[in-house]
Amino acid sequence: MSGSVFGKNIAVSTWGESHGKALGVVIDGFPAGMELEEADIQKYLDRRKPGTSAATTTRKEDDQVEILSGIFEGKTTGTPISLLVKNTSQRSADYSEISAYYRPGHADFGFDQKYGFRDYRGGGRSSGRETIGRVASGALCLKLLSQMGIEVCAYTKAIGDVEIDYSKFDKNAIYSTPTAMPDADADKKAMDLIMKCREETDSIGGIIEVRITGVPAGIGEPVFDKLDASFAKAIMSIGAVKAVEIGDGTKVARYKGSENNDEFSISEEGNVIKNTNHSGGILGGMSDGSEIILRAYVKPTPSIAREQSTVNRSGEKISINIKGRHDPVVVPRAVVVVESMCAITLLDLMISNMSSRADYITSFYTDRK
Amino acid sequence: MSGSVFGKNIAVSTWGESHGKALGVVIDGFPAGMELEEADIQKYLDRRKPGTSAATTTRKEDDQVEILSGIFEGKTTGTPISLLVKNTSQRSADYSEISAYYRPGHADFGFDQKYGFRDYRGGGRSSGRETIGRVASGALCLKLLSQMGIEVCAYTKAIGDVEIDYSKFDKNAIYSTPTAMPDADADKKAMDLIMKCREETDSIGGIIEVRITGVPAGIGEPVFDKLDASFAKAIMSIGAVKAVEIGDGTKVARYKGSENNDEFSISEEGNVIKNTNHSGGILGGMSDGSEIILRAYVKPTPSIAREQSTVNRSGEKISINIKGRHDPVVVPRAVVVVESMCAITLLDLMISNMSSRADYITSFYTDRK
Amino acid sequence: MSGSVFGKNIAVSTWGESHGKALGVVIDGFPAGMELEEADIQKYLDRRKPGTSAATTTRKEDDQVEILSGIFEGKTTGTPISLLVKNTSQRSADYSEISAYYRPGHADFGFDQKYGFRDYRGGGRSSGRETIGRVASGALCLKLLSQMGIEVCAYTKAIGDVEIDYSKFDKNAIYSTPTAMPDADADKKAMDLIMKCREETDSIGGIIEVRITGVPAGIGEPVFDKLDASFAKAIMSIGAVKAVEIGDGTKVARYKGSENNDEFSISEEGNVIKNTNHSGGILGGMSDGSEIILRAYVKPTPSIAREQSTVNRSGEKISINIKGRHDPVVVPRAVVVVESMCAITLLDLMISNMSSRADYITSFYTDRK
Amino acid sequence: MSGSVFGKNIAVSTWGESHGKALGVVIDGFPAGMELEEADIQKYLDRRKPGTSAATTTRKEDDQVEILSGIFEGKTTGTPISLLVKNTSQRSADYSEISAYYRPGHADFGFDQKYGFRDYRGGGRSSGRETIGRVASGALCLKLLSQMGIEVCAYTKAIGDVEIDYSKFDKNAIYSTPTAMPDADADKKAMDLIMKCREETDSIGGIIEVRITGVPAGIGEPVFDKLDASFAKAIMSIGAVKAVEIGDGTKVARYKGSENNDEFSISEEGNVIKNTNHSGGILGGMSDGSEIILRAYVKPTPSIAREQSTVNRSGEKISINIKGRHDPVVVPRAVVVVESMCAITLLDLMISNMSSRADYITSFYTDRK
Repeated sequence: MSGSVFGKNIAVSTWGESHGKALGVVIDGFPAGMELEEADIQKYLDRRKPGTSAATTTRKEDDQVEILSGIFEGKTTGTPISLLVKNTSQRSADYSEISAYYRPGHADFGFDQKYGFRDYRGGGRSSGRETIGRVASGALCLKLLSQMGIEVCAYTKAIGDVEIDYSKFDKNAIYSTPTAMPDADADKKAMDLIMKCREETDSIGGIIEVRITGVPAGIGEPVFDKLDASFAKAIMSIGAVKAVEIGDGTKVARYKGSENNDEFSISEEGNVIKNTNHSGGILGGMSDGSEIILRAYVKPTPSIAREQSTVNRSGEKISINIKGRHDPVVVPRAVVVVESMCAITLLDLMISNMSSRADYITSFYTDRK
Repeated sequence: MSGSVFGKNIAVSTWGESHGKALGVVIDGFPAGMELEEADIQKYLDRRKPGTSAATTTRKEDDQVEILSGIFEGKTTGTPISLLVKNTSQRSADYSEISAYYRPGHADFGFDQKYGFRDYRGGGRSSGRETIGRVASGALCLKLLSQMGIEVCAYTKAIGDVEIDYSKFDKNAIYSTPTAMPDADADKKAMDLIMKCREETDSIGGIIEVRITGVPAGIGEPVFDKLDASFAKAIMSIGAVKAVEIGDGTKVARYKGSENNDEFSISEEGNVIKNTNHSGGILGGMSDGSEIILRAYVKPTPSIAREQSTVNRSGEKISINIKGRHDPVVVPRAVVVVESMCAITLLDLMISNMSSRADYITSFYTDRK
Repeated sequence: MSGSVFGKNIAVSTWGESHGKALGVVIDGFPAGMELEEADIQKYLDRRKPGTSAATTTRKEDDQVEILSGIFEGKTTGTPISLLVKNTSQRSADYSEISAYYRPGHADFGFDQKYGFRDYRGGGRSSGRETIGRVASGALCLKLLSQMGIEVCAYTKAIGDVEIDYSKFDKNAIYSTPTAMPDADADKKAMDLIMKCREETDSIGGIIEVRITGVPAGIGEPVFDKLDASFAKAIMSIGAVKAVEIGDGTKVARYKGSENNDEFSISEEGNVIKNTNHSGGILGGMSDGSEIILRAYVKPTPSIAREQSTVNRSGEKISINIKGRHDPVVVPRAVVVVESMCAITLLDLMISNMSSRADYITSFYTDRK
Repeated sequence: MSGSVFGKNIAVSTWGESHGKALGVVIDGFPAGMELEEADIQKYLDRRKPGTSAATTTRKEDDQVEILSGIFEGKTTGTPISLLVKNTSQRSADYSEISAYYRPGHADFGFDQKYGFRDYRGGGRSSGRETIGRVASGALCLKLLSQMGIEVCAYTKAIGDVEIDYSKFDKNAIYSTPTAMPDADADKKAMDLIMKCREETDSIGGIIEVRITGVPAGIGEPVFDKLDASFAKAIMSIGAVKAVEIGDGTKVARYKGSENNDEFSISEEGNVIKNTNHSGGILGGMSDGSEIILRAYVKPTPSIAREQSTVNRSGEKISINIKGRHDPVVVPRAVVVVESMCAITLLDLMISNMSSRADYITSFYTDRK
């Protein structure tokens, strides 16, 4: 069953393995007429590129995107956009050993059980490199969303027990700190923690937060394709994410109704607003006009350079020590992936919403005649 | 855009509003030959029925299911199964007032923004009664899963700050306590808390936990249709859920890799097992053979019988006091809804998995010739 | 695998068997705000109702539609519309015999092979009564299309070798002649042919033609979801249809390019028009602004009251004589089914088209702010 | 709306324009473990390659396929297979003139109306080169089908008024004659006709027939996703096809029931067979165990090197004369495209069929434990 295609109106079909010839994506259904050049995409890919700081693997991956189709005279044509990134620095030799056993915390065992064998080089399809196609697609959606005044902003909220201080929130820091934290002080502490983990041949988890502004009320479909449900799937489909929450999230389990309800009010401009935002901008599966707030909880990198017990394909218990160049924390590089998945999801549901009323459809066709 | 159809192989299409003539579901793609009678479904609907204890609304809803199609000589035929529950005790008069304003914590504003108007009677399509179709569908899937030795068991883990004690875990209590807690002592404490909330014209949230046993490794599609991502969407699509987690969930953000990784081992029977289960039975989006563990965090009922500020459709600030018969907590009745959504999701992905290998397909057709 | 759900934006989920309690459909994704009452649907169902002339079965089927959800204060709400028609005059006793053997020209053998058994009463799910849900759904789509000046008009073009004479085309005759022919003279000749077939315990085939006016150019998606390809699936999915053609259809195989090409020109109003319409209003999978012309070739009713050879479920050759009240020709009653399927297909693709350009999306959201 | 993705279980996502950098396809959901190398695909691409005879354009297109992902150690891995063909011999200069006007018989006008502009070089996305991705995908499906004893064989049945003589049917001739006719005599006559058309700066249409053997009964979903309906969409989605028929097709409109019904019988081996095959191997939307027979009616190439009237983008009537290297007939090169689309469609529905019975699912999982 196809499981690498995402989206209803815009269908994002990613492909590629860690050590194959290339990775990429086909984006079908993206609307015509948006200006697009490779640089629009490259800047997002650069945010997930490793080797830029001590927080990441020392592997060098250039990840230069190439547009193969769907653009003419600098604009999207409405037909499928094919994007490709060549694999250049893969060293398959590093991974030959892992073919024989199941790495703890990895998908190896599942792949073997499902498919009978697996491309074990660098994790194959389960590698984080799979997200290249997501980020490239996200770049397009983010550009179109921004033309509607919608901003999707993801950042690192925490690494281990180091959390950002919102009073020091500096958006620029997201793009300049190695941790993608919007708080330079927290970034420094987090880097200390990361360095300590690396020394101890260990890794660490963290939290990614997303804030989306400018979304009109009513986006999302009321039952199964709720906005929050769709975000949940999109975000949980990213490799290391183990929990997703909207607004006050897990905390609501202890709330009383009087604490959790956001009262509606009227802004000075006469718009319906909410006095608080426990809901995280989503009520009944539809945007409520407030800022949308989501969080992804990310597990520590499972590849750690210390002895672990496991079993091999022959069913024997063995002791292993995974070599290779691994990120001590995946959070900073995953920030742009979360941002991308949110953008694809949101744009897809905004398109769905365009046919929510009969008069939207009739006026679309009759006004143009 | 259609948003009330769920599932790829089995398509569940729910319909109905709180105060319409009836609610129901069409289940398309359910396999032929499973014995099914109304009682198989009714027992699950009875678990979500209100009026059974002080923890729920005093509304009486009989919710008798009727099978309209898809069954012949006591067995599913492979064609669409249409299930219907008539609305019998709805008092529309109760709700006339709320047509004019936006209830805090509800979808009213979103519905008006999206569709231009809304069926305000009892929340219309956003009512919890919408879940009748989910539970009826879940009943079928749970029955088929049980024939493969798979058990999906949901229960209340917490209400407010009252949590169950796992050392007192008693599965029967799930079905006999008013809170659906598997711990009779916690149930008593939780009921005290619920009664206190009701007295204070307030409501309370809670946590639903699901454990799924018997799932073979390899279920789930590696990229977008991961098992955990699919569960996340399924569960987050239930009205009051604000967070979903798998295994150790939010806690992994503070873990080190060495704490989070589950080492593989070999059981006495020679099977690959894990020594721990931080992953909650899912690695890389596929089941890993361990027990699957999920949690849904549920917000308190937004309808509370106390004064709240809000705005009306004319854009005026007003003060309201919502009348009607509301649950002080939605968690106990939502347990079976979570169980149902997990069952539908799991069965759907187990069907997808049947074509994961070329020789599964070829042997299916050539062995039967 | 689900196969009874049709449509991407508007998902039509039909259900029901010939002799079950009822048949119906859930229409998900239909836009909000269109006025709708049961009479809007009933008039189309009445067109497929049998027992109205000697051309049809003498079975009496009232086929009264009931709206169960999705309408509030006389308008569609944007949430699923559930429509139900009760089975009232089914005589299961008529069909008990056919359970044991495979009727020539019917799906009996396929059903048994696929599902292991079948609801044999009146053909079960393969009965023409399955189309009730299609016609009911079509009624909604036809209403919305008409509000955009789009008319979908199907009629009988031929029964056996009796063809209509276009010079006598009278649209009213479609709805008043027993054959649904728009030519009263041809109708009389066709009725003679039908009566002769009935006397000879035989049946006859025919051709249904559809003309769609008012469709703007550019509807349809260029590659797989072409407008003509989508129509082809929609029409071929109707029971007895064995061929579908667009415009000059099968004739193009003998054409030269200079005969087949339609030259573009400019109308007096300054619009791009075509001087001829060999293409049937569709070029490259998109509407070209001309009238859309389609044809469905319908086989004769397979149930005939004369001796036929076949085999039974035990694998023995037997001789049968199918009793029951069968239509000597299915064409007249299928006309409204073809019309309905075209309407659903067209509206679905017109919604898809609303997001074909980036500025359609951005202006939809920014103009309303 | 996405319209370049085809299939439910196996999702084929094609991309690329006539004069872009490359064309290709991503095949998601193809099962793991099938041996695959580029040569398996190349042999099918070579069948659609132009420049091999006087019946085709003199353009030289190498169309060498490259596998970019989804294969490991010579086998499909179950993850997306990305295939790419570089455009090498495109001369964009040839086409600069056509940017300003609408070619008769082409999609130019529709593209402009839909998207606001178009990639006019060689027809852009509407070029026949778009089918490269279809043929590459078909190659994989054909290989897997053949491992189940299923053969899909397409060939040219007619070009203009030259039809094959079935008594001279020679399968090898399909692959060796320039017309892809299985009758060398007919091929010669057809070549004469084609040469005459070319001399007269004209083009000619034709008929492609497909025969599929070895398909077990019961494949196809009874209502909307009927086997014949799915084939109809698949085939009609190919550029120049204007009609599709199954079995006796259009002829059934004149048949009586007694002529059209195929009586069932028992073969010497004890299998249920049909004495005739008017149905073309499909009854009630499901395969009936007989040979499946389909036909596609293909229009003449619209690009002809003679004067034609049309309009330009400024709305002026003009006279044009299309230059370039065009096929005088598209039929021979389209044969392998039809074969491919049938293979993808059939395999997809065969996978769907694997979950048609509850015991297929339960035994799949319980027999392996």
